[in-house]
Amino acid sequence: MITIALDVMGGDYAPAELVRGGIETARNHNVRMLLVGDPQAIAPIMQKHDLAMARVDVVPATQSLAMDEDPVQAVRSRPDASVTVANRLVRDGHADAAVTLGHTGAGLVSALFTLGRLPGIDRPAVGVPYLSIQPKTLLIDAGANVDVRPRHLLQFAAAGSAYMCAMHNIPRPTVGLLTNGTEDNKGGRVSRQAFDMLRQSKLNFVGNLEGLDLPRGTANVIVCDGLAGNIALKVSEGLTEVLLDRVATALRETLPADIAQELVMPLLRRLQTENSYAHVGAMPLLGVNGISLIGHGRSKAQAVIGAIGQARLAVENHLVEALQTELADVVGEENA
Amino acid sequence: MITIALDVMGGDYAPAELVRGGIETARNHNVRMLLVGDPQAIAPIMQKHDLAMARVDVVPATQSLAMDEDPVQAVRSRPDASVTVANRLVRDGHADAAVTLGHTGAGLVSALFTLGRLPGIDRPAVGVPYLSIQPKTLLIDAGANVDVRPRHLLQFAAAGSAYMCAMHNIPRPTVGLLTNGTEDNKGGRVSRQAFDMLRQSKLNFVGNLEGLDLPRGTANVIVCDGLAGNIALKVSEGLTEVLLDRVATALRETLPADIAQELVMPLLRRLQTENSYAHVGAMPLLGVNGISLIGHGRSKAQAVIGAIGQARLAVENHLVEALQTELADVVGEENA
Repeated sequence: MITIALDVMGGDYAPAELVRGGIETARNHNVRMLLVGDPQAIAPIMQKHDLAMARVDVVPATQSLAMDEDPVQAVRSRPDASVTVANRLVRDGHADAAVTLGHTGAGLVSALFTLGRLPGIDRPAVGVPYLSIQPKTLLIDAGANVDVRPRHLLQFAAAGSAYMCAMHNIPRPTVGLLTNGTEDNKGGRVSRQAFDMLRQSKLNFVGNLEGLDLPRGTANVIVCDGLAGNIALKVSEGLTEVLLDRVATALRETLPADIAQELVMPLLRRLQTENSYAHVGAMPLLGVNGISLIGHGRSKAQAVIGAIGQARLAVENHLVEALQTELADVVGEENA
Repeated sequence: MITIALDVMGGDYAPAELVRGGIETARNHNVRMLLVGDPQAIAPIMQKHDLAMARVDVVPATQSLAMDEDPVQAVRSRPDASVTVANRLVRDGHADAAVTLGHTGAGLVSALFTLGRLPGIDRPAVGVPYLSIQPKTLLIDAGANVDVRPRHLLQFAAAGSAYMCAMHNIPRPTVGLLTNGTEDNKGGRVSRQAFDMLRQSKLNFVGNLEGLDLPRGTANVIVCDGLAGNIALKVSEGLTEVLLDRVATALRETLPADIAQELVMPLLRRLQTENSYAHVGAMPLLGVNGISLIGHGRSKAQAVIGAIGQARLAVENHLVEALQTELADVVGEENA
């Protein structure tokens, strides 16, 4: 049976929605949940739920982190923060995966400090599927690493490739480098050096890609630094919001009221939800020595259940072993 | 009367659609058009059009540039290329503005080499309005400068601010810096230094912005390097395409066929067109000593007319003088 440690103190709806999501997962799946946080805050919420058949345990954590803190300082100064306790349960073999939905930066730092890095990785990265528009296209790095060197981009590519292979069963994922055009000499100094390293690597590298290729899903893994990746994802989320809103307004003015209300609006709302970041649930931090997922702070119980589901998939697909193999194969020689 | 030099040899539909757009502008507006290119290619097209009342002259250029050439080499080795002849007409006072719709890189290099830079600008930049979604939000740089230093971002901000003030009559345009979050310490090394310079400048700086702010139009000028800017714009163009396509498919399956066909599809097609890059027409290169606009290679006559219209607005609004004043005010001391 898989055991998952859930940091129930992080996120906008903590702890109630997180406890609820944890309990529902334990009731409906063959998963043991460790709810990590303040027992006095968790107990009254647990009493409201039916715990029969649910394997749920509370692991006390006496500290927690605030959203506006500096991640490194916050994680260093509070070793008993709930997110760090969750990661420690993974490190010490008491849990197969840790999930946090709070402070993204603190989640990254806590996982990195607690679990350590895999050989061949200088900087762990977060990959995110390109919303529901292209679920088989992973954008990596999505925001963890802003200033990068060429070899970091190669490492992100290897990690993303291992992820798409292990989690989506794609044998040789195609990998593209995101720049300002598709010609070989596009991009800046860092991109151009990374291009050469990617071309010489064992990865299934298809060359430079441009912004259009992300929504078109031209490759399975699209690599860039965390600044460009974060901008691309958030522009996409914002544009989806604004564009579907414009469509809704225009259709309301054009169509008979009942058709607009009953047929069109639910459809647009569904597209909106599917293409929001929150829908992704949570994504594993790729490159740490253990499974640790970071999700959207705005997650309610349903999104928490999705996040835990992602953690289960990562455990079942032996994500860490897949990463180790790919990293040894692709960047092993560079680091030797 | 305004005189505009149009490079009719550049772009996917050159020279026919460009000549047509030039003639139509001259016929309908108080503009004299100089069509720059190969007279033997232009003459037969002109014969097909009604030239009564149209002030159109042909200025011969014996060379032209291909799309796959290295811009610097191509521009240097062919001083009589149509784009360079057009820019030279501006430099020498024979035209008020030059417009090219061909090779973007060559257009930039040609304008820079021929017209020179304004004081206070190290690197001219291209600003592009955020499609029709937020026409009063200018993204600068949109792709001309990939590797930048903090002071370049300050210069882009000043240039963008002058542009929005002169062209959109916004007295003190708000300026934001595009990074991976809205907190003061977001972004990479370059962004953080630029943040301090922007905060100390005379610009109406509102702080760091994230990707969501571009479609939401949070500021009048959103500053970033050309790599992030190009990615943001092309991701947006691609997502608009894919998302409206998904909406169309879903609505076709949901709505009665006649309503879908007659009411919904024209509306979605209009949103598609309005939000494509091509709709922008052309944008002036900000920071060169003269008005030189670069447009989309896929422009047909209607887009060419739009591009020339942008050039007229830039001339009428004294864009170069506005830039000179703002640059002296904002970056004058830095450069002194």
